[in-house]
Parts: sequence; C-alpha cells; structure tokens
Amino acid sequence: MSQEYPSKLIEQAVEEISKLPGIGKKTALRLALYLLKRPQNQTEQLSQALQNLRNDTRFCRACQMISDEEICGICRSAKRDSSIICIVEDIRDVMAIENTGQFNGLYHVLGGIISPMNGISPDDLSIHLLIDRIARGGVNEIIFALSTTMEGDTTAYYISKKLKDYPLKISTIARGIPIGGDLEYADEITLGRSILRRTNYE
Amino acid sequence: MSQEYPSKLIEQAVEEISKLPGIGKKTALRLALYLLKRPQNQTEQLSQALQNLRNDTRFCRACQMISDEEICGICRSAKRDSSIICIVEDIRDVMAIENTGQFNGLYHVLGGIISPMNGISPDDLSIHLLIDRIARGGVNEIIFALSTTMEGDTTAYYISKKLKDYPLKISTIARGIPIGGDLEYADEITLGRSILRRTNYE
Repeated sequence: MSQEYPSKLIEQAVEEISKLPGIGKKTALRLALYLLKRPQNQTEQLSQALQNLRNDTRFCRACQMISDEEICGICRSAKRDSSIICIVEDIRDVMAIENTGQFNGLYHVLGGIISPMNGISPDDLSIHLLIDRIARGGVNEIIFALSTTMEGDTTAYYISKKLKDYPLKISTIARGIPIGGDLEYADEITLGRSILRRTNYE
Repeated sequence: MSQEYPSKLIEQAVEEISKLPGIGKKTALRLALYLLKRPQNQTEQLSQALQNLRNDTRFCRACQMISDEEICGICRSAKRDSSIICIVEDIRDVMAIENTGQFNGLYHVLGGIISPMNGISPDDLSIHLLIDRIARGGVNEIIFALSTTMEGDTTAYYISKKLKDYPLKISTIARGIPIGGDLEYADEITLGRSILRRTNYE
C-alpha cells in the first residue's frame, strides 16, 4: 500500500527497516509498532548491537571469516589440518559445515559468489587473498563448498583456473539425492547427475 | 539450528534482531550479514531511525495516534466531523481507513485489544481516555472498527458497557463477503452471518 504516515519518525523508521532484504513496508511498519510497544531499552539494545556489529566486526586475516580477533578461532586452532582449505561463500556455510563435525581443515570465506547479474565481480571477493594463501605453500587440497547454481559453478571454475599452476588436489562437495530424500521428489537434474556420478556400494 | 557463532558481535546482533516478531535466528543472521556487506552509513541510519522513533515519538493527546505533534493532523483539521469517533486498535487501521477516503470523523486509537491470553487488560489500553473524551460532550456516534475476533468482540463489548449511560449511537463496521470475493471461498461463519444480516437491494 502506498501510504501517508501520520508521523515522520514512523515514516523514516519504516523507510530504513524496509531497506532490509525480504522486508516490505507492511512488515517494517509492524516491526516499528512492535518496538514502540516494548520497553525503550529493547530498541536501544537492538540499535547498539547493529552499530557494534557494523563498526567493530573484523575479518580473520587468514580466512576472511567474521571474527572478533585478528585471526579467528578456527585458523588459530592447533587441532585443525591446515593443508586442506574449504572454500565457502559466507559465514553461514562455515557454521553449517562446522555443525556437521565432519571437517577438520581450514576455511576460506569468499564473501559472495561471482554474479554479473548482481554486479559482483571476482575483484569484489577475497579470491586474491586465497591465491596469496596458497602461494605461501602448505596447502595440498581445496574443496569447493559453493551453491549448485550457475554463479557457484562460475566461481569455482574461475578459482580453479587461477590455481591451475599450483600442485593442488581440487575437489567439490558431493552432489546427489539428499539423505532421507524421496527419489520421487528429486528434481531431474539432481537425479540424472546422481546416476551418472554413482559411487561404489559399500 | 542451535549455533556457535564465530563472533560475539554477530551473536549479539542475531540475538537482538531475532527478538522482533516473526524473525527467527536464521533470518536474523541473514539480515546481520546483509548489513555487514552494505555501506556503514546504512546501519547508522537504520539504528538512528529506530532510536528516534522510540525516544521521540509522541501520541496525540486527543486520539492517542502516533503523531509528531501534541495534537495530530486529523484531530486538528477543521474539515473533520468531530461528532463521530471511529475506534481502532492501532495506527495501521487508521492508515487503512484513511486510504479508503470514506470516513470524515475522528479516531480513537486503543493501542491494542483486550486479550487476557496476551496479558492485555482494559487498563493497558486508552479506554479511559476515550470515556473522558465522550464525557466532555460533542460526540454523537462511535463506530467500532476492530478485528472480528474474540478479542475484538470482547473489547467492543467492554467499551459499549462503559459507555451505556451516554446518549450515543454505537455502530460497528459491516461484516460480510468481501467485494470481489467468491462465495465458494467464503468461510461458513461469514457467509451465514451475511445471509442473516442481509441488506436491502438498492
């Protein structure tokens, strides 16, 4: 709905909240009214947390993950295998993979994927830092853990070309039917690929 | 997902954002990461707008609507009919009714509806201010424009009892099949009521 707001303050708050992805003007107004009904310190804590996040967040000098310190906990850990680097788009992927408990190497967070449609070029990502990291030696394998989209595939292809002169094993996470997934509901491309790339029955 | 966040700042931001209604931890994390990728001043403007809203918003002394001034534009207007008061739950209802251009009276914003389930009692609403307003005279009609829920009905009933000694016409907005609505898809209660409360064919 196009609206005339009875208050400039409401209008400005709605304007700013609705700049967030996936939040329209109606939801923004609902959130603003919610905050108005809550104690004043809830709004203070929210805006303080947002400002702290934006002003004080640092990125791990090694892997570019969001971190409160110069080198993140994963990169600092002596228990991790620094010869394997898993390449991901953002911190959510790191959290998801860490949750599985199945990976003991290090990460490299690209900060996005190459997407000409959204104006994201290789220079906007931390690819050059990845190459520096590998040039310094000690890395034997990189694993691409990127989305199975054209952008994800393009990004993996671009990076693999850039790294072709290094003696690296390059792998990508397995694609196939999800565990617990019903064949009937799998899309044709996934199902087709999962037949082509079948693995030995153990 | 229960999570360990790699940064306290992210964790606090997610914590605060996910206190908003309808926003879970996953969405909160997505919004936090979005802000991190945007220019710093977007976050500043957002948190400033929220603080201004919460700290500086006033409520119209007459109708309790959110307003930047002591008396809101609607209550101040000489063109409005001050003998009719439309009773609504919150500012969104005022905006929706104003959008129709079909109402020329004043409003009274309750700030919620009576809901024992959510711990909202009559004293939490601006009902006493409505009664004061009517006691001062000059009001001939009140219109209830509340949700058709048990809470809405309870609120209307409570208010109508409180006002029973005043010589007022009390009405409620029409209920029935929405215009453009398909009979087939109407719920039984609405359809049943709309037959019982049929109006003359014009």
